[in-house]
Order: sequence, then C-alpha cells, then structure tokens
Amino acid sequence: MKVLIINGPNLNLLGRREPEIYGSQTMDHALGLCSEIAEIEYFQSNHEGELIDKLHQVGFNSDYAGIVLNAGAYTHTSLALADAIAAIELPVVEVHISNVHAREEIRHRSLISPVCRGVIAGFGLYGYRLGVEALVRG
Amino acid sequence: MKVLIINGPNLNLLGRREPEIYGSQTMDHALGLCSEIAEIEYFQSNHEGELIDKLHQVGFNSDYAGIVLNAGAYTHTSLALADAIAAIELPVVEVHISNVHAREEIRHRSLISPVCRGVIAGFGLYGYRLGVEALVRG
Amino acid sequence: MKVLIINGPNLNLLGRREPEIYGSQTMDHALGLCSEIAEIEYFQSNHEGELIDKLHQVGFNSDYAGIVLNAGAYTHTSLALADAIAAIELPVVEVHISNVHAREEIRHRSLISPVCRGVIAGFGLYGYRLGVEALVRG
Amino acid sequence: MKVLIINGPNLNLLGRREPEIYGSQTMDHALGLCSEIAEIEYFQSNHEGELIDKLHQVGFNSDYAGIVLNAGAYTHTSLALADAIAAIELPVVEVHISNVHAREEIRHRSLISPVCRGVIAGFGLYGYRLGVEALVRG
Amino acid sequence: MKVLIINGPNLNLLGRREPEIYGSQTMDHALGLCSEIAEIEYFQSNHEGELIDKLHQVGFNSDYAGIVLNAGAYTHTSLALADAIAAIELPVVEVHISNVHAREEIRHRSLISPVCRGVIAGFGLYGYRLGVEALVRG
Amino acid sequence: MKVLIINGPNLNLLGRREPEIYGSQTMDHALGLCSEIAEIEYFQSNHEGELIDKLHQVGFNSDYAGIVLNAGAYTHTSLALADAIAAIELPVVEVHISNVHAREEIRHRSLISPVCRGVIAGFGLYGYRLGVEALVRG
Amino acid sequence: MKVLIINGPNLNLLGRREPEIYGSQTMDHALGLCSEIAEIEYFQSNHEGELIDKLHQVGFNSDYAGIVLNAGAYTHTSLALADAIAAIELPVVEVHISNVHAREEIRHRSLISPVCRGVIAGFGLYGYRLGVEALVRG
Amino acid sequence: MKVLIINGPNLNLLGRREPEIYGSQTMDHALGLCSEIAEIEYFQSNHEGELIDKLHQVGFNSDYAGIVLNAGAYTHTSLALADAIAAIELPVVEVHISNVHAREEIRHRSLISPVCRGVIAGFGLYGYRLGVEALVRG
Amino acid sequence: MKVLIINGPNLNLLGRREPEIYGSQTMDHALGLCSEIAEIEYFQSNHEGELIDKLHQVGFNSDYAGIVLNAGAYTHTSLALADAIAAIELPVVEVHISNVHAREEIRHRSLISPVCRGVIAGFGLYGYRLGVEALVRG
Amino acid sequence: MKVLIINGPNLNLLGRREPEIYGSQTMDHALGLCSEIAEIEYFQSNHEGELIDKLHQVGFNSDYAGIVLNAGAYTHTSLALADAIAAIELPVVEVHISNVHAREEIRHRSLISPVCRGVIAGFGLYGYRLGVEALVRG
Amino acid sequence: MKVLIINGPNLNLLGRREPEIYGSQTMDHALGLCSEIAEIEYFQSNHEGELIDKLHQVGFNSDYAGIVLNAGAYTHTSLALADAIAAIELPVVEVHISNVHAREEIRHRSLISPVCRGVIAGFGLYGYRLGVEALVRG
Amino acid sequence: MKVLIINGPNLNLLGRREPEIYGSQTMDHALGLCSEIAEIEYFQSNHEGELIDKLHQVGFNSDYAGIVLNAGAYTHTSLALADAIAAIELPVVEVHISNVHAREEIRHRSLISPVCRGVIAGFGLYGYRLGVEALVRG
Repeated sequence: MKVLIINGPNLNLLGRREPEIYGSQTMDHALGLCSEIAEIEYFQSNHEGELIDKLHQVGFNSDYAGIVLNAGAYTHTSLALADAIAAIELPVVEVHISNVHAREEIRHRSLISPVCRGVIAGFGLYGYRLGVEALVRG
Repeated sequence: MKVLIINGPNLNLLGRREPEIYGSQTMDHALGLCSEIAEIEYFQSNHEGELIDKLHQVGFNSDYAGIVLNAGAYTHTSLALADAIAAIELPVVEVHISNVHAREEIRHRSLISPVCRGVIAGFGLYGYRLGVEALVRG
Repeated sequence: MKVLIINGPNLNLLGRREPEIYGSQTMDHALGLCSEIAEIEYFQSNHEGELIDKLHQVGFNSDYAGIVLNAGAYTHTSLALADAIAAIELPVVEVHISNVHAREEIRHRSLISPVCRGVIAGFGLYGYRLGVEALVRG
Repeated sequence: MKVLIINGPNLNLLGRREPEIYGSQTMDHALGLCSEIAEIEYFQSNHEGELIDKLHQVGFNSDYAGIVLNAGAYTHTSLALADAIAAIELPVVEVHISNVHAREEIRHRSLISPVCRGVIAGFGLYGYRLGVEALVRG
Repeated sequence: MKVLIINGPNLNLLGRREPEIYGSQTMDHALGLCSEIAEIEYFQSNHEGELIDKLHQVGFNSDYAGIVLNAGAYTHTSLALADAIAAIELPVVEVHISNVHAREEIRHRSLISPVCRGVIAGFGLYGYRLGVEALVRG
Repeated sequence: MKVLIINGPNLNLLGRREPEIYGSQTMDHALGLCSEIAEIEYFQSNHEGELIDKLHQVGFNSDYAGIVLNAGAYTHTSLALADAIAAIELPVVEVHISNVHAREEIRHRSLISPVCRGVIAGFGLYGYRLGVEALVRG
Repeated sequence: MKVLIINGPNLNLLGRREPEIYGSQTMDHALGLCSEIAEIEYFQSNHEGELIDKLHQVGFNSDYAGIVLNAGAYTHTSLALADAIAAIELPVVEVHISNVHAREEIRHRSLISPVCRGVIAGFGLYGYRLGVEALVRG
Repeated sequence: MKVLIINGPNLNLLGRREPEIYGSQTMDHALGLCSEIAEIEYFQSNHEGELIDKLHQVGFNSDYAGIVLNAGAYTHTSLALADAIAAIELPVVEVHISNVHAREEIRHRSLISPVCRGVIAGFGLYGYRLGVEALVRG
Repeated sequence: MKVLIINGPNLNLLGRREPEIYGSQTMDHALGLCSEIAEIEYFQSNHEGELIDKLHQVGFNSDYAGIVLNAGAYTHTSLALADAIAAIELPVVEVHISNVHAREEIRHRSLISPVCRGVIAGFGLYGYRLGVEALVRG
Repeated sequence: MKVLIINGPNLNLLGRREPEIYGSQTMDHALGLCSEIAEIEYFQSNHEGELIDKLHQVGFNSDYAGIVLNAGAYTHTSLALADAIAAIELPVVEVHISNVHAREEIRHRSLISPVCRGVIAGFGLYGYRLGVEALVRG
Repeated sequence: MKVLIINGPNLNLLGRREPEIYGSQTMDHALGLCSEIAEIEYFQSNHEGELIDKLHQVGFNSDYAGIVLNAGAYTHTSLALADAIAAIELPVVEVHISNVHAREEIRHRSLISPVCRGVIAGFGLYGYRLGVEALVRG
Repeated sequence: MKVLIINGPNLNLLGRREPEIYGSQTMDHALGLCSEIAEIEYFQSNHEGELIDKLHQVGFNSDYAGIVLNAGAYTHTSLALADAIAAIELPVVEVHISNVHAREEIRHRSLISPVCRGVIAGFGLYGYRLGVEALVRG
C-alpha cells in the first residue's frame, strides 16, 4: 500500500535551515527510512493552497493507506488545511521534526491535530518513519 | 447587472464534504437559484492569493453590482483578504452555508465581516441566493 | 403562511434613533417589504420578559413558518432569550439592521446565534425581508 | 413554616422544553415532593424585574423559612438579582435541575451563588425537595 | 428647568438595604437636596424594560435639563439601557451612591458610562445633588 | 443499600480547622445524620492517589447506591480524580461544606463537577446528608 | 476650610492641549469656580514623585477639608500614587475633565479610584467645582 | 537494552474504562507489541509521588535505553512530574492512547512535553510500541 | 550591492487603495528613492507561498546586502513567512507604510519582527528608502 | 526551640539535579547552616499527601518555632498544601533555592504564598538558613 | 533646521550597559552620525517628569523639525509620556537601539507608538540617524 | 563591607502609614538591625528617577557588597527600575515588609524580581536584616 508524505512551508530547506533545530540530514534520508515499510509518494510546497489541492486530489483514493503530513508553520495558522483534512476520507498523521511543545508558545497550538488520527513530534526525521508505521501497522 | 460569486477553500468539495454540515447538494444548485435574479459569474480557489487577485481584478469594475463571498476557513484567519475587500470599490456580501456561530469558537470570529456590507449565515445554499438578492434589490 | 417579526429594545425608535447607524426609515417600510411575500404579525417590546413570553406564546404554533427576531442589545446579553429560542419549536432567524461586526466588540458576540437557524446582518431594513424569505422560500 | 419557591425564565415550559436536559415531568411533581416537608408557595416569571419584586416582597417576612430559587438563565447574567438576594433577610437556596457545570461554559459562572446560602444542581426535580429540606432541616 | 432622577433595581430598598454600603438615609433625603436647585421628577423601577420606556418617554422632551440615572446593577449588565441613553436627546449623568471602583471587579465596568455625559460615584446620597448641579449649572 | 462517603485532603481536621469556614462539629456528626437513611462506609485520605484507588475499588460494586465525595482542594486541581469518576460505574455526588462560590476564585472552578451526577455546596455538614438522600431517594 | 487641588502630568497645558478633548479654557477658570465655595491651594507637576511628596506634605494637615486630584495619565499607571492616597489621612476626590470611560480602554482602569472617596468625570472644568463641593458640603 | 514503560492514573482500568475513548484491549496487548523490539519493564500507579519515585530510581540507570511514559491526567497538572523528567538522565517519550488534542481543552496543554524527547498521541495501544521504537531505533 | 524589495498582499494597489492610509503615490516613487543609494530588485505578490519561495531563492545569495520586506497583512498572520526569514542568511528589514501601531489591535502584533533585523513603520513610502539605507549604511 | 524543614518533590536529588539551577551542594550542607541557630528536624517526600500529613502532624505542636517549607513544584499546583498550611497553627516560611521569578511563567504563581508568613527565594541553600532565622529571630 | 534627540532612562549608561544588547559604542557616536544631516540638540534623563517637561518646552517651537525619542523602558509603561507627545505640535519619531520585538513580551507593547509619527527599531545607534533623516528628508 | 539600602515611594511614612500592614516601627529600627552585620548606607525617595540615578551612582562601586532594595509600588510598575538593576554590576536583593503575595493581585507581579539576586517578603522590618545577611554571608 502507498503512503503520501506531504511537507509544508520551508521544509524544502531541510539540512540547510537552522540545523540546531532541524538537524543536518535532508529529506532523502527520511524517505529512505519510510520506503523500507511502504511505497512512498512525496510532495512539498510552500503554498497553503497547493497543500489543500494535494489533499483533495489524493484524499479519496483508497490505494493509499493514509497521509503523513508535516504542515510546518501552517500547523498553527491554517484552519483551511484543517478543514481539508476533515473533508477527505484518508487518515492523516501529523508529524513534526522538532519537539514543538518545547519551542515558542505559538507552536503549542495545532489547528490540525483535532482532525488528524494522531500526532508524532520531536523524533527528528525518524518521526516520518514512525508516522508511516502508524498508518500501515498501527 | 452581474454578480460575482467567490468560494474559498474546500468549497469545491460541496456535496461530497461532511454532508451533515454542508448538505448534499452541489454548488450548481446554488448557482441556479442565483441566476434567477442576476447574471452570475463564479470563481473558486483554495489559494488565498488567488482569491485576493480575483477581488482586485473585478473589484473596480462597475459592471458588477457586487460580490458574494464565502471565504470558507479564510474568513477566520486571513487579514489579507479583509484588506483586499477594504481596498476595492464593489460591495462584498459575506455568506456561510452553515451557522458558523453554532460551531467551534474559532469560527465565531470573522476577520472580513467588518469590511463587508453584510453577513448571511446558516441558510444552506439558499444563502447565496439571499446574498445576490441583497446586492441587486436591497 | 404567517411569519412573526419581533423587535427588541429601542427598535421602537427606528427612524428617530441614530440615523447614521439605523437609517431614517421607520419599521412600517420594512413591514411593507415583508408583506409582499408572507402574512406578517409584528411585535415590539423593550422588556426582555415580554419578548420571552411572546416567543413561548407563538413558538409552538404551526400556523407560523417561523419567527424573524431582531433582539437589539439583548442579542448580546440575554441568555434567557437564547433559552427561549432553544425551547420552542418554530425556527428563528436573527436579523440586525446594522453590520454588528463592524461596531464595538461587545456587539460581536451573539448569545442567540447558536440556537437560531441563521443570521442576517448589515442590510438595513431590507434584512427583515431577507429573513422572511429565508423562512418561507429557503 | 413556609417556603417560597421561585422559578425564573423558561421554567414555565418544564415537561415541554428540551426533555433530554430537563426531563419530562412538570413542576407540579416537584411541588408535590416539597409539600411533604413544608408549606409551599410558588411563583414563576420570565421577567427579571418581577423576580426582584417578589424577592423584595417576601424577603423580609419571617413567616418564611427561606426561598428556593431556580433563576434559570438569569443565574448567569443578572447582577440585579444577586443584589436583591443580598439585600433581603431570608436565606436563599440556589437550585438547578440540570448539572449546569456539565453544560456550556457560560453556565459555569453563577452571579448569585456568592450571596446564596448554598447551591444544589443536577438532581432533576428532586433538587427542589433537597433545597426545601436544607432550609427547614439543615 | 426640570430634572428627571431615575433609580434602577433594588434602590427602592434604600435605607433598609445593606446600610454599611448604602447608608441609612432614604431617597427622600436625596430628593430634598436636589429640589433646592431644580424641579425634580422621580422614577424607580426594578424592571430593565420600564427604565428604557421611561428614558424614551422623557428623553426627547426639552422641558428637562437632563436625567440623573443610578442604574444600580444594570449599570454593569444592560447594553439595552446604554442603547436607550445613546438614542435619546437629553444628557444623562450616571450616579452611584457607593464607590463602585472599590467593590467587586464586576462593578468596575460600566456599560453606560461611554454614552453618559459624566459619572459621579462614591459620595453617598449627595451624589444625586452633584449630578443635578452638573446638569443645571455645569 | 450502602453509600460510600469519601473525604479528601485536610478534612481529617474538621472541627479543628478554620471553624469560621468549616464549623466546629466533627465528621462523626455528619456520619450520624447520614446513617439515618443509608448504611454508610467512610474513607478519608490526604493522598490523591489513595482517593483514586478507593474510587476504583468500590466504583464497580453494585452493592452501593453511589458515592458522596468531598474532594477538598483536589476538587479544583485534580483532573486525575475527575478521570477516575468518569471511569467508574457508580454515580458520584460532589459535596462541599462551605459555599465554595463565595470564596477565592480558584475555588469556583471544579474539575470534577462535569462528571458528577450533581453538586451540593454551602449547607455545612448537613450537605453530606443531602448528598446521601439524593442517591437513595432522588 | 481649605481644599488642595492637585493636577498631574500635561495638565499645565490646559487650554492649549487637544481642545476637542479638554476644552479651550485654562485652569484659572476652574480655580475661580472653586474659590466661590472654599479657600483653594493649587499645585501642578508632571513628576510622579512630586505629586507623592505633595500628598505626604499636606495629607496629615487637618486645616484642609481634603484634596481634589486630577492625576492625569498617572491615574491609570501609578500604584505608588494610590499607595500615597491610602497612606494619608485626608480624603481625596478623583476628578477627570473628560469622560475617561468613553476613551481608550487603558483609561477605563483607575488605580487610584479604590482608595479615593469618590470619582467625578466628564463635566469639563466644572468637575473641579463639583469635587470641592463634595468635600465641603457632601 | 531495556525500556521502562510507566502508566499513570486510571490506566490500570484499561479495557474496562470508557472503551469508546481508550479501546477495549488491555495493557498486556501493548506490552506484547513492545516486547518484540526491546526488553520491557512495566510500572503503573495512581500516585503522583510513586511515579516520581520510580523516575528517580531508574532515571540514572544506563542499562535502560529510556522511558515511555503515559502520565494520564497528570500530564496536564503535574509540574512535579515534569521536574522529575528534567532531573533524570534517561530520555522520556510521552505517549497518549487517545488523540488528546481532539478532546477537552484542559488536555491540550501538557506540562511534561517540553522536557520529553518527543510526543506520540492518538494511535491507541500501538503508540507504546512506537514510543519504544523511537527510543531503541530512532 | 543589491537590495531586494518585496511587497506583500494588496500593495500592488498602492496609490489606488485607501489613500487616506497609504497615500496617493505609487511604488515607483519609492523605488526611485531607493535606487539613489543601491541597486534595487523588486517583487510583489499576493500569494504567501510566492513570498516564501522568493525569500528562499534570494536569501542565500551574498550578492545582496539584504531584503526590505513589507509583508502587508501577512505580517500579522503568517508564521510560515517568519520561518522563512529565520531560515535564510540575508538580513531582512521589516517596513510598513502606515504607523501600524496606531491602527487596529490585530496590526500591533507582528509575527515577523522577532526574526527581522529591525523595523521601520509610519514614514510612508520614504520608509523603503530608510530600510535600504539601514542595510547598506547602517 | 525546634524548626521543621520540609522539602518537596525532586529535592532529594539536590546536588545531582540540574546543578546550573540548584547548585552542586547537597541538603546536608544547608542543614548544617541551619543547625547553628536552631534544633532542626528534616523531612522530604515526593508525595503531596505525605507533605500534608507531616504538616498536620507537627503543625499544632508548640515545641516548634515553625516550619521552613520548600514545596518544589507543588508550590505552583497544590491548593491542598495551601489549605494544610492555612489549617495548622505554626507559621510556615516558604523557601526556594533558585529565583523562581526569573524562570518559566508557571513558577511565578505560588499557591502557598498567601498563607505563608513570608517568602525567601534565590539565595541557594543559604535560603534555608535565612528561613530558620526569620522564625527564631525575626 | 534643528532636531532634538531625547534619551530616556538608563541610556546614560550606553557603552557600559549590557553591551550584548546595546552594543559598545557611546551616544557620542550616534550624535556624530546625526549631526551630518541636521543641527542636533541632545537631552537625557532618567526622570519621567523631566522628559515630559522637555517635550512641553520644545514641542511648540517651530525652529525644530521634530523630536527623536528613545524613551527606554518608559516606552512600555508611561501613558503620561504618550499624552505629552499627543499634546505638543512637533512630530516625534520613536527609536529603539535593539529590536524590542525580539525581546521580552512586556517590550512588545509601546504606549507611545500610536501618537508618534513613526517607529524605528533594531538598527543599533544608526537608528538615531534614520530617525533624524525621517524628520528632515522624509 | 558596605551595603546600600534603598527605600522607594511612601516608605518615608513607615510607622505612620497603615500600621496594620506595615507595623508601627520606623525605619531606624531596621537600620539598627542591619548595622549589626554590615556598614549601612541609606537612601529613600518617592521619585522613580532618583532611585534609578542612585542605582547608577553606586552600582559599579566594588566597595559595596550589594544593594537591598524595597522599591514599594514601583516594584510592580517600573520596568525602568528593572532595567537599571540589570545594567549595574552589584547584586540587588528585593525586600518587602509585608507578604505582597497575600495582598491585591497587582502586587503579585514584580517587574524587578527576574533581575534581582533574590527576594525576601513578609518578615516585617526584619526582612532588611535578612537581605543584608544574604549579601554579606550568603
């Protein structure tokens, strides 16, 4: 079964962006870990609208076990993204590389958590792997 | 006279998305009701920027009686959309299919209401018709 | 079918009270617009208790399609009125002449919205007409 | 000794109003339970001012052991009622049929509790009986 | 010139109600002080609606220099009363017997102050005299 | 039928602790009143964990009509206690000796009220009797 | 008997400063009105410390009936001034030229009101006269 | 390597407690899943102090890869538990069976998240397995 | 050295949009002033995602002295934009044409200020010139 | 005279726990300083209930001059501990090793301060000595 | 034309005070930069009252193009200073050496910003130069 | 070694001011206690600016062990004072005569605590002695 991994804003800079927070490995490393246990499709965009479009496009397709979503900062500001997750049929797992709860207060509130199946935060890139596992084995 | 109807994020899924909240009819039904009393142009996008672009493009055109806008979740989070409404010359009527005031607290605050001519919420798809009527007869 | 229109506190002064907010037309004008599409009964009181009594008296009478209610300032302070609306069987449409969302913050919170069928605000006296239409055609 | 039972707004609809919250028995049932242990006088009004007038009228009369008050929604909005309770000499027991603490947040704050002798909530109509007992035996 | 003095809820109990807050003199004493400098008309009610009705009835009558209003607890909860004051033409002076700012927090916010000409609080019954003086000499 | 009465922290000092708030009678007096109408079992602990353990131990035992719980200060701080009440099968009645609503603000919020059957506060030790009565007769 | 009138920051600019708020008359006019009914001493400073020093210097002197204080913006920010008022023996009357309650929210909270005898606001310069009268006749 | 799994209050009732939230499987099932990838030690207590004691006892022992902690309701109220986690040397993974972010607001704030390595919520009992995996493979 | 000037939503309407707030000159005027002291590149978009993409594209290019950013309404709502600024290497100067601090409260909070080098607001189009100067001379 | 020193949760790890906050000396050092000026009894527990039990046991014993209490994190969360302090007769001095006011916001609010005689914070282990001195010499 | 530069509390310590925040250069350096484009007068005081006095003294003098004010901590606490700025005729530019928005929350709110012409923050001592330029060239 | 003791506003009235809060002894008594263990210099002012000036003057002088500061009401309102404490080199101990935490809420927040070495409150005049001891022996 397939799993779609979606990365939101600024996550295209992984490995280059603030390594003390996000580590120095790139997304390829994470995708490798995930591919060991499922067929992975990957999508990244800095555009809120494109993330919503993507969720609509795949979200009713039962070839996928679900979606692993790291919405980046949109996690905390995008009710539209939350509505998209609620509207589709596939389960969505929310993943964060850093432990958002140990950072600034604005990152403690997630608008999308209530409509996701579950949340995984703080385990670096390994979090994507845990998210895929939760979808295919959990 | 013409009226532009703009739908925001996730409203492309009408009829398919959470029917217990949004009903099972599609937007075509609403557009039919509206066309009885005015010439209707319709635009939908999940992209905040495209909604702003559209407002700019039509908002100074006096061939239109006004704009009926269901901004979806951007209603509650997009100050940029509110600024666009304030910047243009045409009146904008805010419409919501569901009674947003009876839903989660985050949906009780509308950033765009203060710059719209008026608000219509809770009457299902018939709300679009009421919005058009407010522009052409009110 | 009949529709009951109820006006709350200070709305007996329409046409005389702050015309820059409420316009200079009297309620007779609004009632005329409404009578074009339904049989209208009209009631006004400055007394919270009398508004509740009226809702009780008519609210279980199936000769009425519903009630259009402009509760004035009680909109924002009367939980008892909200309880009355929730207790009766007829649908209630909340109407405001001015765009309450563009006024002081205390007028942004409506205690009655969650138990009304829908809300119409900002269209002047034409709002009563839209409210009646929502009940008889929507 | 006599006990005055006062019911506030919408409680005249008991048995008819939202039975899933308030049950299907009428107030007569409650008054019967109370009459087993005291002479009962009963008063109901939807008017805040009439409730205050009644408290003033009986509140200095030592023929009464006290007053059992279910102020309905005025519990949460009427400081004037609280002032009336503080102004009179008889003790007042606050009663609620439903467990107000398990309902919406606005029902968690009682303006009258601080000036009542005590509070009883959540025991259905039997709460009136407990309130009378608290006054005559407690 | 005439001045109308209006007292709100529970002020009919003056001299009898909590004398440590409101003193032991009755309203007659205050009216005597006021009559020395103007022709006084007096009205008291515990009903919010009757207070509004009275403001409407006198508020457009230029035989009066203005209105002195002690709205009691409605000061802090009645937006409808504030709307009535804003709607009429006569100036209204807000008076409180006690220093409301030294009491519970709920009494620190006055809904009517912003629409009154001025506020006088804390001078006991002499405050009514100061209020009348402000209207006829200030 | 049996009723379990549970007292939380500091209630072992009843009669000795702040008599102006809690009175000078000991818990034996309350238990005597309760024994007149049911078979009473009594448990007191200052340990949050022991209170939870006790609720678990008795909470599924249908020999009991229910539990009367005065959780003392844990009422306002222990979500774990609330979870225990929600988890068991027996109904729990929340009792407070003093009128907690007339005391400091932190005592106005009860974490356990929403999961209790009802609340009784302010009637001194007689409140335990009322609580037992609510369980066996209400 | 003497009355000390103290003006706080920026009140030395009266007649010159924002006449739409403070009017165009100078303080001499107000002092003239006050001198009709008491012997007046006047002090103005923009320095919080000098205002406190002055209160200390006169505040225990029984030759004065009291102090009329317009603390300007320090009203809303100076707890030290409030402590000085609480520490002295003479009564202090708080006066504001404008209706502070109708201005920005920060001007709605007065730190000194709770320790003043009373408050007078909104009557222009005549408020000083009312303040003096409250001290010598009230 | 060993992993210590600690369960907090009410989790001894798993399988018996609110199955619509927590599912109907017991903790044995979860421990089985975890034992497939590490040597598991298990501890449960309803006592905040015992949970702290346990963290102290094991938290400096390098025979363990880390600790998986489901602190139940103490997650949201126990700063002492957070301090214990910060004080020890082993990493702690916070696990919740349900999606706490989709429940009551009080469950949205975790006091322990900022001092845990990461958080896993919403995956039912499989969350314990993911937590162990994060410690031994992540 | 080069400086990139980025304008966010609705700033394409400069000169046409609310001239009482934004003045009647167009952006060309501002760019002229800036070109006197540096080589200027200009970019405008109403799309949050395009602004982020642009920051990524230029933000690591040492041919630029830095970026002058007027993010319009996204200033107050876009954490994703703030993350982009934090992620890149070039310094960013935040500029506002109007004095945002003198406008509605929602415009007082800037999400991007903490990650910008500095802020310039209220100097009209000349603010862009000051921003460029801060980068090339400050 | 004797003084009881009570340490709350995690303070058994002193010298071992976060030395950059709590220093590297153990409690023995502090007890030595205290023993120079009074007979010291020492008690530590991580259990809220045991701390309450201990306060009850010693709190009415006039052989003690008072109690020095470092309640650790319970300072900020335990109303039950505050009630215990209020219930006993001996004075209690609140001590903190670190300057809690310079740490996270949750540590700025102490539930026990209002019922303690005084507070000493920020002087490291010497604070215990100052606390004992305040009891025996102050 | 002349420009008055006013520095508030603790800015006399520039170069000596927390150089990691304020840099190691003294105010003489800034004054030199400013003198290149205008005639500069400089004033510093730690006394709120003296700052107000100075604003009054120069604020109506049309020999000055305006005032550059770094009010230090008074920026965040002095409404009296804001009133002084509003009362005078010269424009005032608010300058901060550090990026106050990136520091503690109390420094995010400026009481004086709404009445200043504009704000410049975060550019070190060069900010004074930008402020002067805004006044003489902007 | 020398210690400077600084008293803020209204503390010149010690012994005369509200003795139920501050006791009836004068500051001479406290200075006597302090002189037993260090050479004491004493300064008092009601002027925020003079307190800052004094801190600057002595704060870099290594002949002093430190400063004991009772800033009175400025504790809660003066960020400028906090900045002065942070700017100087000598350690500052914050002392309060009364237990500020048991008084009004505005006295619970200290702006200076985070930059002081430690805090001592509630021990009457003996607190100054404890503060000096903390500096010279702690």
